Amino acid sequence: MRRINLFTIMMLMASMAMAQKFLTLEDVMSGGNNWYNLQPENRFTAWWGNVPVETTADEVKTLLDGKTLFTIEQLNETVGEKIAHSGHNVVFPYGGKTIVQVRGNGQRVQIDWKKGAVVWRQSIPEGAEHQDFNLTSKHLAYTLDGNLYVKTADGEELQISTDGSTDGSNDIVYGQSVHRDEFGISKGTFWSPDGKQLAFYRMDQSMVMGYPQVDITTRIASVKMDKYPMAGETSHQVKVGIFDVEKRTTVWLNLIGEPDDYHTNLTWAPDGKRLYVFELNRAQNDLRLIAYNTTTGKLEACLYQECSDKYVEPMHGLDFLPWDNTKAIMQSQRDGYNHLYLLDVNTGSLEQITYGDFVVQEVVGFNTKAKCVLYLSNAMEPRTSCLFSRNLVKPRCTLIGAGEGVHSASLSEDGQQVIDRYSSPTVPRSINLYDTKDGKGKNILTAKDPWADQGYAIPEITSGSIKAADGKTDLYYRMVKPVGFDPTKKYPTVVYVYGGPHAHNVDARWHWCLRGWEAYMATKGYLLFILDNRGSEWRGRDFEQVTFHHLGEVEMEDQMEGVKFLKSLPYVDADRMGVHGWSYGGYMTTNLMCSYPDVFKVGVAGGPVIDWKYYEVMYGERYMGTPEQNPEGYARCSLLGKAKNLKGRLQIIFGYNDPICVPQHTLSFVRVCEDAGAQLDLFTYPGDGHNMFGRDQIHLHERITRYFEDFLAK
Amino acid sequence: MRRINLFTIMMLMASMAMAQKFLTLEDVMSGGNNWYNLQPENRFTAWWGNVPVETTADEVKTLLDGKTLFTIEQLNETVGEKIAHSGHNVVFPYGGKTIVQVRGNGQRVQIDWKKGAVVWRQSIPEGAEHQDFNLTSKHLAYTLDGNLYVKTADGEELQISTDGSTDGSNDIVYGQSVHRDEFGISKGTFWSPDGKQLAFYRMDQSMVMGYPQVDITTRIASVKMDKYPMAGETSHQVKVGIFDVEKRTTVWLNLIGEPDDYHTNLTWAPDGKRLYVFELNRAQNDLRLIAYNTTTGKLEACLYQECSDKYVEPMHGLDFLPWDNTKAIMQSQRDGYNHLYLLDVNTGSLEQITYGDFVVQEVVGFNTKAKCVLYLSNAMEPRTSCLFSRNLVKPRCTLIGAGEGVHSASLSEDGQQVIDRYSSPTVPRSINLYDTKDGKGKNILTAKDPWADQGYAIPEITSGSIKAADGKTDLYYRMVKPVGFDPTKKYPTVVYVYGGPHAHNVDARWHWCLRGWEAYMATKGYLLFILDNRGSEWRGRDFEQVTFHHLGEVEMEDQMEGVKFLKSLPYVDADRMGVHGWSYGGYMTTNLMCSYPDVFKVGVAGGPVIDWKYYEVMYGERYMGTPEQNPEGYARCSLLGKAKNLKGRLQIIFGYNDPICVPQHTLSFVRVCEDAGAQLDLFTYPGDGHNMFGRDQIHLHERITRYFEDFLAK
Repeated sequence: MRRINLFTIMMLMASMAMAQKFLTLEDVMSGGNNWYNLQPENRFTAWWGNVPVETTADEVKTLLDGKTLFTIEQLNETVGEKIAHSGHNVVFPYGGKTIVQVRGNGQRVQIDWKKGAVVWRQSIPEGAEHQDFNLTSKHLAYTLDGNLYVKTADGEELQISTDGSTDGSNDIVYGQSVHRDEFGISKGTFWSPDGKQLAFYRMDQSMVMGYPQVDITTRIASVKMDKYPMAGETSHQVKVGIFDVEKRTTVWLNLIGEPDDYHTNLTWAPDGKRLYVFELNRAQNDLRLIAYNTTTGKLEACLYQECSDKYVEPMHGLDFLPWDNTKAIMQSQRDGYNHLYLLDVNTGSLEQITYGDFVVQEVVGFNTKAKCVLYLSNAMEPRTSCLFSRNLVKPRCTLIGAGEGVHSASLSEDGQQVIDRYSSPTVPRSINLYDTKDGKGKNILTAKDPWADQGYAIPEITSGSIKAADGKTDLYYRMVKPVGFDPTKKYPTVVYVYGGPHAHNVDARWHWCLRGWEAYMATKGYLLFILDNRGSEWRGRDFEQVTFHHLGEVEMEDQMEGVKFLKSLPYVDADRMGVHGWSYGGYMTTNLMCSYPDVFKVGVAGGPVIDWKYYEVMYGERYMGTPEQNPEGYARCSLLGKAKNLKGRLQIIFGYNDPICVPQHTLSFVRVCEDAGAQLDLFTYPGDGHNMFGRDQIHLHERITRYFEDFLAK
Repeated sequence: MRRINLFTIMMLMASMAMAQKFLTLEDVMSGGNNWYNLQPENRFTAWWGNVPVETTADEVKTLLDGKTLFTIEQLNETVGEKIAHSGHNVVFPYGGKTIVQVRGNGQRVQIDWKKGAVVWRQSIPEGAEHQDFNLTSKHLAYTLDGNLYVKTADGEELQISTDGSTDGSNDIVYGQSVHRDEFGISKGTFWSPDGKQLAFYRMDQSMVMGYPQVDITTRIASVKMDKYPMAGETSHQVKVGIFDVEKRTTVWLNLIGEPDDYHTNLTWAPDGKRLYVFELNRAQNDLRLIAYNTTTGKLEACLYQECSDKYVEPMHGLDFLPWDNTKAIMQSQRDGYNHLYLLDVNTGSLEQITYGDFVVQEVVGFNTKAKCVLYLSNAMEPRTSCLFSRNLVKPRCTLIGAGEGVHSASLSEDGQQVIDRYSSPTVPRSINLYDTKDGKGKNILTAKDPWADQGYAIPEITSGSIKAADGKTDLYYRMVKPVGFDPTKKYPTVVYVYGGPHAHNVDARWHWCLRGWEAYMATKGYLLFILDNRGSEWRGRDFEQVTFHHLGEVEMEDQMEGVKFLKSLPYVDADRMGVHGWSYGGYMTTNLMCSYPDVFKVGVAGGPVIDWKYYEVMYGERYMGTPEQNPEGYARCSLLGKAKNLKGRLQIIFGYNDPICVPQHTLSFVRVCEDAGAQLDLFTYPGDGHNMFGRDQIHLHERITRYFEDFLAK
């Protein structure tokens, strides 16, 4: 009898095991071969002027009634060659007109799909990089090597610069992003609204030291010197030029300040007569908004100044009101949180239009008719990002759509409608179409949980808050419990950490912003804990700036509050605690391993900062000043002196060609460990940069997991 | 009663444990802090002409009766400054005269210790490198950057070359070793016996590609391009010049052959009228011995030619008979083993003077009176190196000293006496003074076993032979049994391997040539096995050349015979087999891990070759030809294609600045592993080259050990 019982139970267990699938790295990582199949259902949308459309691989149709506008096949037939490959990457250049713009086969083509006719086409110059096409003028700006060119709508090719580097040295670079993509800068050309003038950056970095990046794929390894201005060292010098396409002339802005100041967030006046530049001194504590005359290049007005005893960080340009060329939305966190201000560009007068202990995360656009600005903020709750409409006539603020989760929004041409997408801890994806005046609308898609739907065992994922080390600030965490959690057992626990500015890890999107690897680790029997310490984003200026001049210290104190909390939980095995993080999180991981050698048994640090003197000027000096100004801070925050404390198992992994946290960080740490007799483990991905993608991402996470399995699991 | 018994036993065990000391890495490695204390007792000896002397830190005394010749203090008092620091590095330039030469404080000083007077002194030019001082003429040759200089005995400084690289490029290099130290080359200047003419190398490597070596210790990492001619690529070009100090003129030898041929083993005729050069074509299969006229630079005679369908490798210059300027000893392995030949340099006639299935390892010198040549060979047994005297008048060969162990020998000026040093498996060190005519003499020192003497537990170390994979060739192994060996237990077993040419691991010196790390591993409970496979040295030409054009294959077959043998032993745990090796041994280790993934569970490969195309011209092409000539061999012997087979735990460790097996080897393997989804472990020593020394050596072996402890011990 007993024997039969056992047999029955075993059969039952076997069938249960068969029924339950466990997530693998191939399922949870974007480089994995089953990742796509486990994504929440989606519909791809776009705006054709004020008409919401749905794009598929084969066609574009109206979103609401599903009427086909055109098929890809049809477009290619019209063009006479296979130029379009998918409905997802077509452009509707002119709302209301039945014209679509397609790029392919080295050309840009505008097609009237109703007439079945090509209305404009132009070949793209071979090798053109950093292409910036203006839909109004149809002029194309682009770069080749370090030089800048314009191809006009009628096909004339104009060389704007002639002293850009063509020898690969990158000494002088035109029309590309400057200041190492800090201050919200991501490109180097800026068309005036009418597309007749082109503002552009010129960066002279001939005086900047190069970091040797070794390429092992050549017959004999070769080297490229990558311009990398390290904290306190000579930085590059940036100028702003304006090219007038009709006149064929360039004027240079008469920039004020020092040659190594920052010139950010270039914004054109709607009438093209002015260019607005946010200018910040190298010490990053004195910001000015300057209006330049685009004909003379001369300074017309200093409209705004913001100083700080820590730093000011301009991240956004001006957003002019579509109905009033004299007024623009400006963003500042001068009252302690990033908020919106209405700036009169003639008088410089400023009116704050959002208030409160929350941050505005993004200006989405304007409802031109209702005279509203649409923006995302976490006014509902710190972990959220919800859509609001602020009426600029009557001071009224309206929530549009769900007051939960994390949203992104795309406005129609007139801003009266919005396609709002969000997820919340329990909603994988929701797509809605709203009227931005009253928030009324309809649901387009609510996706089911694809993991549960396909029978995978899903760990329990929760979020909560603890107090920071200051005893008063709320910090939010995510906890991922092992699959098959049993509260009477003790689990090995891994703290995943980032900890630096400009980022957070915990928010109210699906699964509380879970990273796929955490789910995978949960299937292996680990408890994961992720805490956004002070210094991270979405919590306001002071929350972030508390780390000023001593990066890593407050962040670690807060993480140790997380550890204290974990140790209070009966199911956390305090003898088996690990830590993992990348980049700033690699710095935190290494720092925690060396600072709390008796707490963390195993750590995996990726692409870490080791000493801020090896980091670049823009980001590094903002938080740390220069090594000359803040020697004590640099010394305290360097991990080189802490290597000797290392006791646990620490593996550092880095991209062999990391241009951001250059390998000198990791290798210097390796060297001091060796000198101190400390053992650490090391790995690298030749050819990869600061992060790993595709199959390397799978390999990397298999590696990270294996390390915890080797040394923390038992 | 039973309880008391147990207690007694426990106490007894505790006291035994206390009595027995276990070797640590600090004890067994030369970088360790107790290594020196565990070395066999020693006495440092030298020759003052024909008088054997003993040197200490403080003085020099006669070896036999211990009479002090002088103290270091005395020398420094005579000079008037602290120039000498130890008796170990003084030079006796003129046998019979009471003169000693000391170098220090930027000077060379000759002191008559009897008279208490400085007889000659000269300052050394600042920064002088590659110093080559001729005791007869007292002229000093030296280099600065890429140029060559002579400082004459009377202090004149002459610049010999003017087109050497002074910009750090090393494009043109004078007076330094060429051909990457292959072919027995170790320097670039060669004084004629009277010191009046200087032969020197000029190497043009402007056409050679540079390997980027990154220095992470500068403020921002910097790079140096290290000239590295890879197999099949453009090689450097060498010329030989002769500078006449009196005439101040340079003649260049009219070298025959191609610009990238090898010019090796330069030997002066005793009268200075000729320079003998062994010239080898780039394919390394056609060797000629050429005599050049040193006044005209013209070829006077081609004295000898040796061709091969594999390769000829000249490693030794001529040794002229001190009593006959027309005859010299030449070495060749043309009969299958390296033997001595008597060459008549006028007629080119050749007489073989040693014969047999053994190799001559070194020509020690001559007994001028008895007209004997002294040499070391393994005629007694393949694992030995014993001293022999071959009479050149009557063909008679005499063993001098013990016919066992591995010897080194230092002859008196007239060659009638020799200080012979050797160790054997059971004798840590024996120093003897012999008459080279009859081998009679006396023992100076026989050292005790310092390990046993200091109470350390010593593993059992044995040597034996097995048959190679060809079924007939004897291969010698060393086996190190775990401390406290119990034949009924099963032990994790590590194969240590080198396997390449020019080296062996097993010989009849103390402890069968044990490496300290093996003893350390034995204390941790591992069995170590080391086998010299075919392809290694001391066994003759065919034994070595069987690997021609397919390196690694026969070597692995033989190592697998070792594994077969190990598996036949009841105390070897076949499920816990590991492998470790460095350089060629790193190649073998990685190859074995990938080729026999089910045999080896854990491997540690150091500074490995991965693909012979990344190795240099001289060594690489000798064994593999060029990638163009031998594409199939290069493909078969590359490990890049084998990465996908990797199953076990493999850690590769390399010097971050390895100039020999450049990091491109390891990093390329890392990349293919990543691409194949294979996991391997990695470590590097920034700033270190092909090998680690000092404390890094300790760190390294702690690391290697830990890897086996982590993954093989259990």
